[in-house]
Amino acid sequence: MRTGIATVCLSGTLKEKMQACAIAGFDGIEIFEQDLVTSPLSPEEVRKMAADLGLTLDLYQPFRDFDSVGKDLLAANLRRALAKFRLMSRLGMDTILACTNVATATIDDDGLRAEQLAALAGLAGEHGVKVAYEALAWGKYVNDYEHAHRLVEMVDHPNLGTCLDSFHILSRDWDTAPIEAINPDKIFFVQVADAPKLSMDVLSWSRHYRVFPGEGQFELAKFMGHVVRAGYSGPVSLEVFNDVFRQSDVERTAVDAMRSLIWLEEQSAKWLEAGVGGTAAGGGTVAGGPPAAARRRYPMELATLPQVAEPAGFNFAEVKAADTAALETVLGQLGFEFNGRHRTKDVQLWTMGHARVIINEQAPDGAAAPAIAAGIAALGFDVDSPVIASARAQQLKAPVVPRKSQANEEVFQGFAAPDSTEIFLCQGSPDGTAAWTGEFGEAGEFGETGEFGQAGEFGEGLQVPAGGNAVIDHVNLAQPWQHFDEAVLFYTSALALEPQPFAEVASPSGLVRSQVMQTSDRAVRLVLNLAPLIQQDGAQTYQEHIAFAVDDLVATARAARDRGLAFLQIPENYYEDLDARFDLEPGFLDTLRDLNLLYDRDADGEFLHFYTATVGSVFFEMVERRGSYDGYGAPNAPVRHAVQYDHLHELTTHTITH
Amino acid sequence: MRTGIATVCLSGTLKEKMQACAIAGFDGIEIFEQDLVTSPLSPEEVRKMAADLGLTLDLYQPFRDFDSVGKDLLAANLRRALAKFRLMSRLGMDTILACTNVATATIDDDGLRAEQLAALAGLAGEHGVKVAYEALAWGKYVNDYEHAHRLVEMVDHPNLGTCLDSFHILSRDWDTAPIEAINPDKIFFVQVADAPKLSMDVLSWSRHYRVFPGEGQFELAKFMGHVVRAGYSGPVSLEVFNDVFRQSDVERTAVDAMRSLIWLEEQSAKWLEAGVGGTAAGGGTVAGGPPAAARRRYPMELATLPQVAEPAGFNFAEVKAADTAALETVLGQLGFEFNGRHRTKDVQLWTMGHARVIINEQAPDGAAAPAIAAGIAALGFDVDSPVIASARAQQLKAPVVPRKSQANEEVFQGFAAPDSTEIFLCQGSPDGTAAWTGEFGEAGEFGETGEFGQAGEFGEGLQVPAGGNAVIDHVNLAQPWQHFDEAVLFYTSALALEPQPFAEVASPSGLVRSQVMQTSDRAVRLVLNLAPLIQQDGAQTYQEHIAFAVDDLVATARAARDRGLAFLQIPENYYEDLDARFDLEPGFLDTLRDLNLLYDRDADGEFLHFYTATVGSVFFEMVERRGSYDGYGAPNAPVRHAVQYDHLHELTTHTITH
Repeated sequence: MRTGIATVCLSGTLKEKMQACAIAGFDGIEIFEQDLVTSPLSPEEVRKMAADLGLTLDLYQPFRDFDSVGKDLLAANLRRALAKFRLMSRLGMDTILACTNVATATIDDDGLRAEQLAALAGLAGEHGVKVAYEALAWGKYVNDYEHAHRLVEMVDHPNLGTCLDSFHILSRDWDTAPIEAINPDKIFFVQVADAPKLSMDVLSWSRHYRVFPGEGQFELAKFMGHVVRAGYSGPVSLEVFNDVFRQSDVERTAVDAMRSLIWLEEQSAKWLEAGVGGTAAGGGTVAGGPPAAARRRYPMELATLPQVAEPAGFNFAEVKAADTAALETVLGQLGFEFNGRHRTKDVQLWTMGHARVIINEQAPDGAAAPAIAAGIAALGFDVDSPVIASARAQQLKAPVVPRKSQANEEVFQGFAAPDSTEIFLCQGSPDGTAAWTGEFGEAGEFGETGEFGQAGEFGEGLQVPAGGNAVIDHVNLAQPWQHFDEAVLFYTSALALEPQPFAEVASPSGLVRSQVMQTSDRAVRLVLNLAPLIQQDGAQTYQEHIAFAVDDLVATARAARDRGLAFLQIPENYYEDLDARFDLEPGFLDTLRDLNLLYDRDADGEFLHFYTATVGSVFFEMVERRGSYDGYGAPNAPVRHAVQYDHLHELTTHTITH
Repeated sequence: MRTGIATVCLSGTLKEKMQACAIAGFDGIEIFEQDLVTSPLSPEEVRKMAADLGLTLDLYQPFRDFDSVGKDLLAANLRRALAKFRLMSRLGMDTILACTNVATATIDDDGLRAEQLAALAGLAGEHGVKVAYEALAWGKYVNDYEHAHRLVEMVDHPNLGTCLDSFHILSRDWDTAPIEAINPDKIFFVQVADAPKLSMDVLSWSRHYRVFPGEGQFELAKFMGHVVRAGYSGPVSLEVFNDVFRQSDVERTAVDAMRSLIWLEEQSAKWLEAGVGGTAAGGGTVAGGPPAAARRRYPMELATLPQVAEPAGFNFAEVKAADTAALETVLGQLGFEFNGRHRTKDVQLWTMGHARVIINEQAPDGAAAPAIAAGIAALGFDVDSPVIASARAQQLKAPVVPRKSQANEEVFQGFAAPDSTEIFLCQGSPDGTAAWTGEFGEAGEFGETGEFGQAGEFGEGLQVPAGGNAVIDHVNLAQPWQHFDEAVLFYTSALALEPQPFAEVASPSGLVRSQVMQTSDRAVRLVLNLAPLIQQDGAQTYQEHIAFAVDDLVATARAARDRGLAFLQIPENYYEDLDARFDLEPGFLDTLRDLNLLYDRDADGEFLHFYTATVGSVFFEMVERRGSYDGYGAPNAPVRHAVQYDHLHELTTHTITH
């Protein structure tokens, strides 16, 4: 698949954009007119630069508001087109995008439109230019790709074809199957964009909220499947108007964009292999053949990636802290056991059942610190084959994180997620253990510990309840606003997590957008939180956390209290509201209140949880899921935020203003 | 008018919100349930704190999803209501907001609904609670205020009335005139919110984009006029869900909110005095009487403000700079004359026709510097009566800026705009001069100058063209994202400028939202620019500018070039595109190209302009308006942004990558 991207997707100058596209590995680009008009580079310089960078100049765009006009305006529009055709000749470009008229159209007559488009095609032909006519979703008279294609057929000129843009088609919910009926010679260009499903006017939606494939909710693999089946083999090019991408680092956004096409290519191949849906040119249903046959069958070749299953679980979570003593205390109080220091690295291992937490004693690197001070430094995921998963991630342009290791130590394949959290791919084991834990302490997992004392340090005689089945339930990571969409695609494509519909949670500092990414069996649940801007500018810090699931939360909480844990203190008002909402058993309500537990219930089950006080910018949560409860106690999140905010602002319940 | 505000409008904890509301001068508040539930304050502590702060607790809200349900759910809902009525008794509150059901309603039957509401009212009556039933715009069966009111009439219980919320009524375009027909004893509460007119699903619109009155596009004075005519005299309370306000400084947002109600009160009084529209309770049209009569006539008393006309023009613009030499050079090259230093202050006066620029040699105060490094420090506006205008601004809670002055010097009334620009109210004079200029130099305006040389410094023999009629055409100010809406209201209410529909301009750093505020005669044009976030975090700086209008831009440009002005260099590609679009006279196009002039044309006229290079974070623009051209050359703004960005990034046209 030939990859392309429109310069309007990126920030910076035309020169910066072209360089970034070349570095990211695109085959070609679309030149958005405004980027050329505002550039000090001459057309000849742009042409040379593209050649030097190995980029083809695939599409000049857009040419607006040509057709459906009166005679005088038509003459002016042809004059305008001539100037652009001459410019394209200097650029060495042969295809221009002409959108259907939105502003100046006054005559709704397909016959006249065809005549006018024929005139444009004729002029284009004289200058060796091909016109790709595209139906805008908000075109005044032509807003449907099939209508645009009918006009192309009516004109029947070698220099007039159509451009298919996934946004304009999927935003209007047009059926994509008829794409297969289009003569591939008449598909001059294909543009792809994804978008969240928003209920707003389509122009605003289009101009601000498009995202790269995999970051929204459009069925792009299906769209592409139909395009491939139609026999198209030209560039597949991103045209994404997005307010955030327009101001993000250009090289980084270009890589995000490239990743989205690599992923889309794979998804499209899979869709074709599955052979679902779709109508062939002749009208019959096409059943997909075996993979190789599917790829051989169409002019467009679709590359695939190393295949991975979704991760089987969290292997570990790593927390970096200047003050490791406070972290050690909290983990010990929660019921974690200290498993010793690593043989060669300044890290400690703490475990509770199958939940493993590494405390990294290395001071965070100030220079490389992300905008949001992250307390969670790394996450390990159990995968079938770290080598294959790593190869996949690298093909998806995940930045590799070097991990030094000594002889005889397990080497993790590591990548930096968009928020700088390090992601490690680990060999899972069916019994939930991890081989590398033997590198800690003297006697391996759960054995004798190192200098940091015994497992029983926090109360020799106490039972450690529920530790046996404890696992990491979920991890909440704060995402910088510039990289939120990129993170969704990263975890979707490189780690096979599935994005869920997002939620919004109120906090005293503003709304938090919360995006769950999870595996189908919920063994991995990752929550990406887009913190309010005010918490991203250094004035405040958004807190991240790791949640552990246990079998018996009440017992876990009691033991933790006995060990002196500082619980997040839940206001009495919460329990009164809880009782009003759920009509709880008085004894159970007292237990919740007594232990600072939070509670939620829905049709699927119940959820009990509590939070620790915050250490640095990290805190911990313990949860118990009853029945098939699948959420995260979202109704309780505002309480948690408010209490944490109160602590941060050092207010107490007793300083009432008089 | 009794003023109120819902705690959900503000950031912070309940305690912080209450304190901020008291400081801003609100009479009462609505307690948003989540704010209480998440608070460590007991209901009794909240009650005492409100009393101590002089705030009444006007409304407990919301009680959701009560009616239109089956028998079991009704019982649970009544149980839930009972818990809330008991809570309200502890809070000392007597009114609760019940919204129409959006989530759990299953039975669409007004008879049943009335029965269920009667049960709720009966229970409320036992606890001294009044239920204000409000139609949500997206209510499942009841989404229209007249429908909600009909149900209230059907139930006919003293403890059941209705709540009118401007958002739920105006977002659905419901006719507001029938409000006058509602029995005022049945209007238990009135909530107001403004909003930009967005075409999106009403729930998202409501939850994220509401703004304070005067910051959006709803006809709120009309809405309030009908409410007043109905005979309502209770609190008028803001309920504004806004993503930005929720994370802005709580005290500042509370003042912004209070300003909006003060302004709305005045606008409502004016609407009533004008006597436009509306239907009286009896069905006849009500014609407004004289002002005093209008205010006497209804139970709600509406305070008015000192009245001011829109400003007659800019009196001056003041630029602060560390490097004043560079500013002096640019102004001189543009054709400004140096008018000397101030007698007692470290400022210089430069003039060109009626355009006055003060260069402030005081180094900016680092500690008080706003998030956006502003180059434009102050603006003076000509008003009829600075004393009256100042009194108005102070009543609108504009923060006063102290301006030291010596004996015999004109004292300006000054205020800090939301972006920290200082706004001075000056005595205008019909001939466009300003008395205070006599405080500069030795011999007064245009007389002999001080140590900074003679007026002819930049070329003794040159003609100074067009200077005689030069005026400040417009000023562009960068607005921090936290204070953009606040700024719109500030200039609307305190300075009588009219907001225009906003535009969006592409720049290499992202989209710039551009909001014009102007007088009806265009003597004052102020452009508020919301820069991309990336330019607000310190990494980049958004540049502000002052534009001067002259009679002959070409002559002005030629003279400036002769004086050595560094023009913003416009790319050749721009002129080719201009020619393609406008089919210009070749000679005229050459002139534009030769002088780095930009050009625009529309049905009203033509616009010629050029920009200087940037000094610090300020640059200047010279414009010529031909015909009735009323815009700002918006199609050219991306060119300007791109070239400025290029300069900032120190790229040149000749470093092509090989």
